[in-house]
Amino acid sequence: MPHEPVDDRPFRAIGVPRPRADSRAKVTGAARYAADLPAPARELLHARLVPSLYAHARIRRIDASAALAMPGVVAVLTAADLPLRATGDGRRSEPLARDIARFAGQPVALIVARSEAIAEDAVEAVVVDAEPLQPELDAVAIAASAGDGDPRIVSTHHTAHGDAVAALTTAHVLVEGRFVAPWVHQGYLEPHAATAFLDEDGTLAITASTQGTFDARNEVAQLYGLPVSRVRVTAPTIGGAFGSKECLLEPLVAGAALRLRRAVRLVLTRREDLAATDPAQAVVTELRIGAGEDGRFTALDARLVYDAGAYPDASWEWFAAGLMAGPYHWPAIDVTGTGVRTNRFGSGNYRAPSGPQGLFALESLIDELAARLDIDPIELRLRNLAREGDPMVAGGPWPRVGLAECLRELRAHPAWTGRGSLPPHEGVGVAAGVWRNAALPAAATCRLEPDGTLTVATGVVDLAGSVTILAAIAAEAFGVPFEAVRVVVASTDSAPPTPATSASAITYGVGPAVRAAAEAARDQLLAIAADDVEIDPGDLEIVDGVIRPRGAPAEGRSVAEVAEALAFAWGSPYPPVEGHGATAHTELAPSGTAHLAHVRVDPETGDVQLLAYVAVQDVGRALNPALVEGQMAGGAVQGIGRAFVEALVHDDAGQLLTGTLLDYALPRASMLPPIETRWVEVPAPEGPFGARGMAEAPVLPGPAAIANAIAAATGARPRELPMTAERVWAAIREAGSP
Amino acid sequence: MPHEPVDDRPFRAIGVPRPRADSRAKVTGAARYAADLPAPARELLHARLVPSLYAHARIRRIDASAALAMPGVVAVLTAADLPLRATGDGRRSEPLARDIARFAGQPVALIVARSEAIAEDAVEAVVVDAEPLQPELDAVAIAASAGDGDPRIVSTHHTAHGDAVAALTTAHVLVEGRFVAPWVHQGYLEPHAATAFLDEDGTLAITASTQGTFDARNEVAQLYGLPVSRVRVTAPTIGGAFGSKECLLEPLVAGAALRLRRAVRLVLTRREDLAATDPAQAVVTELRIGAGEDGRFTALDARLVYDAGAYPDASWEWFAAGLMAGPYHWPAIDVTGTGVRTNRFGSGNYRAPSGPQGLFALESLIDELAARLDIDPIELRLRNLAREGDPMVAGGPWPRVGLAECLRELRAHPAWTGRGSLPPHEGVGVAAGVWRNAALPAAATCRLEPDGTLTVATGVVDLAGSVTILAAIAAEAFGVPFEAVRVVVASTDSAPPTPATSASAITYGVGPAVRAAAEAARDQLLAIAADDVEIDPGDLEIVDGVIRPRGAPAEGRSVAEVAEALAFAWGSPYPPVEGHGATAHTELAPSGTAHLAHVRVDPETGDVQLLAYVAVQDVGRALNPALVEGQMAGGAVQGIGRAFVEALVHDDAGQLLTGTLLDYALPRASMLPPIETRWVEVPAPEGPFGARGMAEAPVLPGPAAIANAIAAATGARPRELPMTAERVWAAIREAGSP
Repeated sequence: MPHEPVDDRPFRAIGVPRPRADSRAKVTGAARYAADLPAPARELLHARLVPSLYAHARIRRIDASAALAMPGVVAVLTAADLPLRATGDGRRSEPLARDIARFAGQPVALIVARSEAIAEDAVEAVVVDAEPLQPELDAVAIAASAGDGDPRIVSTHHTAHGDAVAALTTAHVLVEGRFVAPWVHQGYLEPHAATAFLDEDGTLAITASTQGTFDARNEVAQLYGLPVSRVRVTAPTIGGAFGSKECLLEPLVAGAALRLRRAVRLVLTRREDLAATDPAQAVVTELRIGAGEDGRFTALDARLVYDAGAYPDASWEWFAAGLMAGPYHWPAIDVTGTGVRTNRFGSGNYRAPSGPQGLFALESLIDELAARLDIDPIELRLRNLAREGDPMVAGGPWPRVGLAECLRELRAHPAWTGRGSLPPHEGVGVAAGVWRNAALPAAATCRLEPDGTLTVATGVVDLAGSVTILAAIAAEAFGVPFEAVRVVVASTDSAPPTPATSASAITYGVGPAVRAAAEAARDQLLAIAADDVEIDPGDLEIVDGVIRPRGAPAEGRSVAEVAEALAFAWGSPYPPVEGHGATAHTELAPSGTAHLAHVRVDPETGDVQLLAYVAVQDVGRALNPALVEGQMAGGAVQGIGRAFVEALVHDDAGQLLTGTLLDYALPRASMLPPIETRWVEVPAPEGPFGARGMAEAPVLPGPAAIANAIAAATGARPRELPMTAERVWAAIREAGSP
Repeated sequence: MPHEPVDDRPFRAIGVPRPRADSRAKVTGAARYAADLPAPARELLHARLVPSLYAHARIRRIDASAALAMPGVVAVLTAADLPLRATGDGRRSEPLARDIARFAGQPVALIVARSEAIAEDAVEAVVVDAEPLQPELDAVAIAASAGDGDPRIVSTHHTAHGDAVAALTTAHVLVEGRFVAPWVHQGYLEPHAATAFLDEDGTLAITASTQGTFDARNEVAQLYGLPVSRVRVTAPTIGGAFGSKECLLEPLVAGAALRLRRAVRLVLTRREDLAATDPAQAVVTELRIGAGEDGRFTALDARLVYDAGAYPDASWEWFAAGLMAGPYHWPAIDVTGTGVRTNRFGSGNYRAPSGPQGLFALESLIDELAARLDIDPIELRLRNLAREGDPMVAGGPWPRVGLAECLRELRAHPAWTGRGSLPPHEGVGVAAGVWRNAALPAAATCRLEPDGTLTVATGVVDLAGSVTILAAIAAEAFGVPFEAVRVVVASTDSAPPTPATSASAITYGVGPAVRAAAEAARDQLLAIAADDVEIDPGDLEIVDGVIRPRGAPAEGRSVAEVAEALAFAWGSPYPPVEGHGATAHTELAPSGTAHLAHVRVDPETGDVQLLAYVAVQDVGRALNPALVEGQMAGGAVQGIGRAFVEALVHDDAGQLLTGTLLDYALPRASMLPPIETRWVEVPAPEGPFGARGMAEAPVLPGPAAIANAIAAATGARPRELPMTAERVWAAIREAGSP
């Protein structure tokens, strides 16, 4: 339930629940995703991957002659065929394996054929002569044994202040544990897909299921040594991404199009999407925390090993200290994060990347600490929250974060207050988290149309309602009804610069640019209207699409009327009404959140039933309550999935065992309790109408809140995700409880 | 040959001859025109027109049953099938004939079929039961006989000041004549083509060979009662237009797509393009002018009849007075222009619409007046030019026009100074003209890319080098090399508002917006660079892509280096570098021009050989001399075509006799002498770097200059266009000369 707005301004476009702009097309099946788009040229060629069969191997020779002899096969491309210019050890600079295959399923060659079926058939005909090498799969063992300069180590980050080891030795209470989180897939519905071709003027035109067109453009341009102006990336309707869709297939289709000078499309199968993309990395966290008798945290000591997979691209060891500190104040801290290369996957981002893995450890131990100190777990957290202005581990002062408000909201919740009188084997747990969010520069334009509507141009890929939020911001800022605004997602050719739809960056980063653009357009129109009636523009306002003197609501002229007159005045002395906004931030606006889980555990089987779930979050301002609720509930479900069922598993040879959706479990509706969402509004000074980015925080506390609930129900604490019945059962047995 | 720049600033990007951005794709055949684009949906349907066989008829019934029974025919649409909302008597509100067919070739129905061939076959199967009516073809007779309220009269405009009739009665010299100019076609290479379909979110997406995407969007939205935000128009590479491509087929394919909810394409055949589009109207001008002994013009009296064709859309009678006055000062004037509806064509615009027809009369008679007064024809014109600040007939004061400079340039030209010693039957003639040009508001954005290049977004359709000119303006304003700028033509969804590429509006109207956008972006970058080195932004400048302290050229940092650092600084405190410009004009910037023709006439046959041709024009500033030359030479050729060969001719039943390019003559290279182009630069205060629109003026003086040359060679003066050998022969016989 939203709190009241913090000021007296009566909002009209924001604060109202509305469906997403893309929901109708998606629900009715009208939406056309990257794989559905019509051919961009007279003939569209189709590509398929030739995967590495080994997790680790030296490629000696690739014999494509039999495949090339098949009717309809146009080319079989290997790494040497791609006109790459950039070098580096990231996955993007190695779209196809060179001499070494780094994981099972890695693309080794690309078949390009006249149909998908022909390409598929030809995969079998390509002979990859490869010498198997020993697969490296155990990140913890590698981290433990590696010497200086070991190429398997991506990097090691050590962060310390105070003397954490000494402080822990003398701590009133010390708790510690080793927490394991597996690889998980981002679980979007639409597999990766991309198409590339050379336009008539030689521009490399790419259409892809991507979260960020500008990022993809810049990456491909750099990779192939092209001027950025010679690459255009367009994003059609996207079917989910959660961090995964960041320029994975674009280099492949771009290389093929540049090489063959033909239009080439690649659409991953579900199996390829599970095996050959960049899922979220496994993390093993060894953590010790201590507190004084008063519950004040004294020190934190952590060793985290990040399984970076086959490339060093998206390993989060550099972020370990900031993550482990959480939203709390620590007098002493000592954190080492180590990224390790293994032969599993590429490693990618997944909504609050590395957050749930680390929080599972921290918030589990805080719960344990509360029990040991016999302090209410919520009270313990409140007592230790960092305050505005305290130094962040990652540098700079903490901005205002509304986490205390979230915790207090939970503390008053009947599910929490009633936890003392539960039936046997039931328990309630809470966990908290904060996500820094990004604060990125962006630009936008807002144009007044001849019929009085507004067109906002953006490069923002519409995920989870981004475009719907931006429309409401523009409507509110200009003074027209929400329905009068259309947000157009343009390609990199003509869109104002915008970040990718990731890192909770859109509302907080692009929202202010849209607001500034709409206000600029509004001021232009007011100046014209004021000119007409010879009054000061400052004495006019626009409310509900009507330009009127302040304080004289009856005397208005509609925006549409003025817009039409302007548009059709040949040789008008007024410039077009189009506002431009370009903004950047001076501070972050983190989003704090606290979740509560209520479980019943069958002590005989370890089966856990989730009975109730409450999520509370500080969203700064709920610009669209329906979308706030959707983000929070969706994130909670992803947390529940990671808590109970999700894991990408390899065998000892590095072969993926969970290569289909029969093997890789995603949370099902039947597993889910009603999810109650509440939010608090602690406005971010630089957010649009106070809004904070709020997309990532909802995935943070789930596994820990559920683990804490299981501990409350059973006295046993599972420390490995997913918390399967087997693992819960084992934890109960080990604890000798109940 | 260009004059020197008027100020001392050393231009680097402008003033340099460069090829057009689209020339490579066009010359190599890579260009993809509207008819070549891939299908925008899974299936593209093809349309063909069912033409009216009669020039004037009442349609009783259309029987499409036989056509609909043909395999592959999807629909046969008639006017009643189009979901039109707007009403009116213009052609746009009647994409298909309703109860009355107004000209032979008018679309009566639209076949939509699975292939073009099927649609073509089905045309024959549609039975149009129509009752022939008497075709109205003689505009002069109608104008003479029509009473008040006659529906055949579009409108009558009468403009007078002083007592022209009295002044002519007492004039020292009076000359008069009746001048006839026929219908002519705009003569572009690419026939009209358009495609429409409904996008996944219900947006009506139109791709068309059009000069103005915003105009087409607004027109279609109004026609079908759609919000403008639900219509998107995209312009691919265009193969010429010259005023013709202004929303002719868009209403047809839009109506079909809305009705059928399918993708529909219509590409005109050359025959349809000649018969069913909107060519330039025929004008009959009865003109009398008088002068005093000193050569000062005393009065002008004119009666013009404009054959508006089947609709009142683009009849120019309202412009008659402004046109007839030309660039001269007239103490008394009396002009009546009458537009008359006939059963010939729709009536459209053609480069300087109605200009060449009127100028043919005025400049012929001025030449005759010079002869009667024995004053050098150039001197006579110079003596009578309106001066800056003199009132224009159309209202407002004359801005500065560089026509005197053009005339003086011609007067000094050897072709003029040597005209006294020509062989028999040769003659030299001159004619002058001025075109008001448009002054329209526009907006533009200019974005700095990570590699230091600039992207300018515009909605301008690239005709005759528009985009190349805008790139040079941005480069000059920002301080980077021309090659560092790319101009992107965006669809109406995301483009900044821009006028259609017509009316000489782009350089003068959009150029300042692009300049403002580039300067804004430059200033943003300078502020960031200055911040970095802690100096005042005003002390920095950008020259040749290098940011440097003023006066210290050695200490620079490249734009690319700063741009790259900015682009890849996660969480940068600087907004994106993107400038926005939105501009409007307070005054027109007409372009003056004077042409010289040197002919040899065979008095026995009337055959005229054009031996030499010189065009001089005030372009304000030659931003790209190669394109200035191209515009001037191309316009001269169109004038020569109208002078000698071009005419759309109907028979007495209103059937077009010149329905193919075998019958409708266009100027051929073999007819053309070397065309010498010279320009003067009288800067327009509000033009970008002083530039004026200069696209239309070059077509103005040709027919009159050639007529005057024929008169000089023969003493006989043809008064009807085209001046065929037969007409010249007849004029010579009539004059009893030589």
